[in-house]
Amino acid sequence: MATLEALNAEYAQYTDEFNRLWKEGNKPERLEEMKKRLQELKKQITVAKAADGGAKEAGKKERLLLKTPKGTRDYGPGEMFCREHIERTVKECFILYGGAQLDTPVFERKDILAGKYGEDQKLIFDLEDQGGEQLALRYDHTVPLARYLAMSGGTNTQSKLWQVGKVYRRDNPVMSKGRMREFSQADFDISGQWDTMIPDAEVLSLVCKILTRLEVGDFTVKINHRKILDGIFEVCGVPPARIRPISSAVDKLDKLPWSKVKEEMVVEKGLDEAAADKIGEYVKHKGSRDLLERLLADEQLVVNKSAKAGLDEMVLLFDYLDAYGITGKMSFDMSLARGLDYYTGIIYEAVTEASAPPGLNADATASIPVAPPKPRAKKFVADGEEEIDESTVGVGSIAAGGRYDNLVGLFATAAAGDEKKKAQGLPCVGISIGLDRIFALLWPKWAERGMRTKEVMAFVMSAGDGLLKERMELVQELRDAGISADFLAKRRPKGMNAQFAAGERDEVPFAVIIGGDELKSGIVTVKEQRWQITNGKKTKVESEDKGAQVKRVDLVQHIRSSGVYQLWASGKMIDV
Amino acid sequence: MATLEALNAEYAQYTDEFNRLWKEGNKPERLEEMKKRLQELKKQITVAKAADGGAKEAGKKERLLLKTPKGTRDYGPGEMFCREHIERTVKECFILYGGAQLDTPVFERKDILAGKYGEDQKLIFDLEDQGGEQLALRYDHTVPLARYLAMSGGTNTQSKLWQVGKVYRRDNPVMSKGRMREFSQADFDISGQWDTMIPDAEVLSLVCKILTRLEVGDFTVKINHRKILDGIFEVCGVPPARIRPISSAVDKLDKLPWSKVKEEMVVEKGLDEAAADKIGEYVKHKGSRDLLERLLADEQLVVNKSAKAGLDEMVLLFDYLDAYGITGKMSFDMSLARGLDYYTGIIYEAVTEASAPPGLNADATASIPVAPPKPRAKKFVADGEEEIDESTVGVGSIAAGGRYDNLVGLFATAAAGDEKKKAQGLPCVGISIGLDRIFALLWPKWAERGMRTKEVMAFVMSAGDGLLKERMELVQELRDAGISADFLAKRRPKGMNAQFAAGERDEVPFAVIIGGDELKSGIVTVKEQRWQITNGKKTKVESEDKGAQVKRVDLVQHIRSSGVYQLWASGKMIDV
Repeated sequence: MATLEALNAEYAQYTDEFNRLWKEGNKPERLEEMKKRLQELKKQITVAKAADGGAKEAGKKERLLLKTPKGTRDYGPGEMFCREHIERTVKECFILYGGAQLDTPVFERKDILAGKYGEDQKLIFDLEDQGGEQLALRYDHTVPLARYLAMSGGTNTQSKLWQVGKVYRRDNPVMSKGRMREFSQADFDISGQWDTMIPDAEVLSLVCKILTRLEVGDFTVKINHRKILDGIFEVCGVPPARIRPISSAVDKLDKLPWSKVKEEMVVEKGLDEAAADKIGEYVKHKGSRDLLERLLADEQLVVNKSAKAGLDEMVLLFDYLDAYGITGKMSFDMSLARGLDYYTGIIYEAVTEASAPPGLNADATASIPVAPPKPRAKKFVADGEEEIDESTVGVGSIAAGGRYDNLVGLFATAAAGDEKKKAQGLPCVGISIGLDRIFALLWPKWAERGMRTKEVMAFVMSAGDGLLKERMELVQELRDAGISADFLAKRRPKGMNAQFAAGERDEVPFAVIIGGDELKSGIVTVKEQRWQITNGKKTKVESEDKGAQVKRVDLVQHIRSSGVYQLWASGKMIDV
Repeated sequence: MATLEALNAEYAQYTDEFNRLWKEGNKPERLEEMKKRLQELKKQITVAKAADGGAKEAGKKERLLLKTPKGTRDYGPGEMFCREHIERTVKECFILYGGAQLDTPVFERKDILAGKYGEDQKLIFDLEDQGGEQLALRYDHTVPLARYLAMSGGTNTQSKLWQVGKVYRRDNPVMSKGRMREFSQADFDISGQWDTMIPDAEVLSLVCKILTRLEVGDFTVKINHRKILDGIFEVCGVPPARIRPISSAVDKLDKLPWSKVKEEMVVEKGLDEAAADKIGEYVKHKGSRDLLERLLADEQLVVNKSAKAGLDEMVLLFDYLDAYGITGKMSFDMSLARGLDYYTGIIYEAVTEASAPPGLNADATASIPVAPPKPRAKKFVADGEEEIDESTVGVGSIAAGGRYDNLVGLFATAAAGDEKKKAQGLPCVGISIGLDRIFALLWPKWAERGMRTKEVMAFVMSAGDGLLKERMELVQELRDAGISADFLAKRRPKGMNAQFAAGERDEVPFAVIIGGDELKSGIVTVKEQRWQITNGKKTKVESEDKGAQVKRVDLVQHIRSSGVYQLWASGKMIDV
């Protein structure tokens, strides 16, 4: 048997070789073969290690790997402060638009999720069968919402429901761009038999409001309509059974050049080349109401029933978008197709400049780039899963959604157990906000501005002897009055400096100092402290101010009437 | 082969028989045998069903079961409004006490969770092995926090960290009492080398503040100290290896009478009967500082090193509790032992009157009831899992925690891979607030008071013709000014009544009416609406008031200056 060292050396060499061939784009069969050999080697190494183990010194055990699972991460205090700001802003907008909150479990029965996500079904995280039900982690909020609405059986009187929570996909993560295996989505959905395009316009207005308030930078909402798209495919001669596969090829136009998409249509999906070219002519268009006019003037298109219905709805929608004052934010984009099967009406996707991969055209709305984008570099790693070179990937869309009129009915019908008796459906339209992608956009700006990590307003210190109980009592007094306060958890802190240092670490604006004599006469010293950013670094503004003598009974009012307290109480939390 | 009908009949009869024998308390072996027979029957039924399937009419398929997984549930709008109130209150208190937020993934690598929960390890939800890492859903927030702190390796400068999120346990759920398989916990932990008992007192003060603010009713925080408990066990002659098992028997005193606990110690765990009786004498005590004095006067006890160390710390703690003004809320309870292995210092548990099961003594702090509690009725159900009769179970403790000084060091040492080199530990003390149990206590009161389910402040309506775009524009104007507003999503609503009905369903306080002529002169009609509770039902207060004519430019100010707006803006949301 080969020694452990020899095996390790062979494994390392072979991995390098594999990565080189991978990058050079060698044949999949050759790579597959090498992969097998690598896995074989790894097994031998495990066996050799076990045999080797006894020989080593006793105390050493297998090291525990201290990490979060692949595609997940911890968020520490500074990051959570930013994330809470994002979540609170989104929730406030949901409330402004008349939404009511819903919460569903993080896992569902597997049969609820089955057959809803097309080929992405394989990305679902399953729970182990430990007896009892077969469960899986939720993939989005839309399917659990539809399950909830179907269970309510028409008795649910809330037409606007919102959810905020984590969803799960076993995809290849690109952590720095907010593409995670565990990620947070905030959904808002309108259900019910309302007049055409009114709820749809509400949802589009909502997403504009949220992205504006969050200051994500310039953004565009690409919109299209499934009925128009299906009409185009019919007019171009796509057989009915191939419409969904061809549509999913079109959906790749934001990542691939037209030539590659056409190749997929013709070579992989067997579409007639002329038909593909015709589709290519249609899907390269984008615009606004002008594009709508041009399509309405397309005699070939308007005779198609599906296309005509979609175009009529778009006319109505544009009228409403004008009333909401958001037409300028929209890009009617014929190349937008959206992957999920369940959409039946308008579909949309919000992008910013940062949405596109760096290698691609900086204009995120350019759907058919002339030059092919830089191919994503992949790296083979030991556990057999691929890793993506993060520098070649963009943040992607930061919000997306559409109309899905049949999903609730699908559940109701399946639960009735009789396909002939179609249960009453419930038309729905909704949007998912990608909170992690928005965080990926906003966090660098926050970090740059040196935002605080917590909201402590007053740090209570003692001059002279420890005065621990007195500090405890004053801290409680402030907290009881709703003022966040803290102190150094030491009986006898090493002088004032140790206490100032602790308060300054958290950039606490008020130092409240108690001392023996003043304590007896009911006086405390209050020193306001400020911070500034110099050369990109946050530093305390040095001041000769020795602080104000404030009567203890007036202390709460003194802090409450300060500018910094009022700014923070307003929830703005901009402390620069 | 037996027919499906015959099998079903046999299964039903056998289940009844089983439940009867179960309730009568028959021997486990006999019941186990019957259980196997039932499972056998179930398999036969499945086969028979499949064979039978083809014969039935074609259209009928297997029905989809529309439900959430066992031990989980959806929370609809009214419930979420209450839950958000609870969560927000808890977060505000965490911030008042100087905490910074942390978020960890919902699942962890299995080896992180292994060996932390004693015999409850079996309750962990595992994820299916789909290639890659072995994962499991988190069981609490404490272990992920310790993992995070060990990963930070002393570089984390935040000593107070809080987390709010869902955790998972494959336990038998008691839904109405907030005992779920998926449930929400809010944790606050203080880490670091601080002076003895100061952080511990902070945490106890925090839990009192939270429970008081949430108005859960009269509550008591039971406290005890692991070192005292261990000292007592040593003094009573428990061999060192049996201390944890005997401790876990003591922990059952809030559910079982002393006679049963003693039986467990003597019969199951082989403890000398005299030793058990001696323990019984100690653990029946509860009190306050007086009990502490009595224990300090116990010569036998104070010569024990562990007990003396614990008692000295308790003396210090009581001094601090006085400074925080919460001594009256504490019950020094010698029977409190807490199940988890990782506690090393003080332990505590908050209970209310509703914490105890209805069959038990109404005094939740009575640890050694004279009469045995009503046995929990269990029901055998088809999936082989037991269900508990919810009427016999209490809410249990609503918050719990303690000091765990070795958990972070355990991770650091395991990651270093060398047991001889003990890595630097990090002492910690913390509390978990059981948000679902608090919800179970508060929700009935909310439902009784008829709380609203959303915060819409203005409902915009049209008198006369539809005026859809005008309604959209006014709604946007209000939302832009931060006033939550909505309208009926119909082009031409069926008169004013349909619009009033829609607004009243959500108890919207302001009806804003636009009409043709007034619209031209820049006037809207604003009608304030109120609700009252009569005979337990919420109804609109009928009024002859036709509403006020308000200039459109003044509308926002008109609403903002109203009492109801200011009440809601204050976050109090009491609308009765």
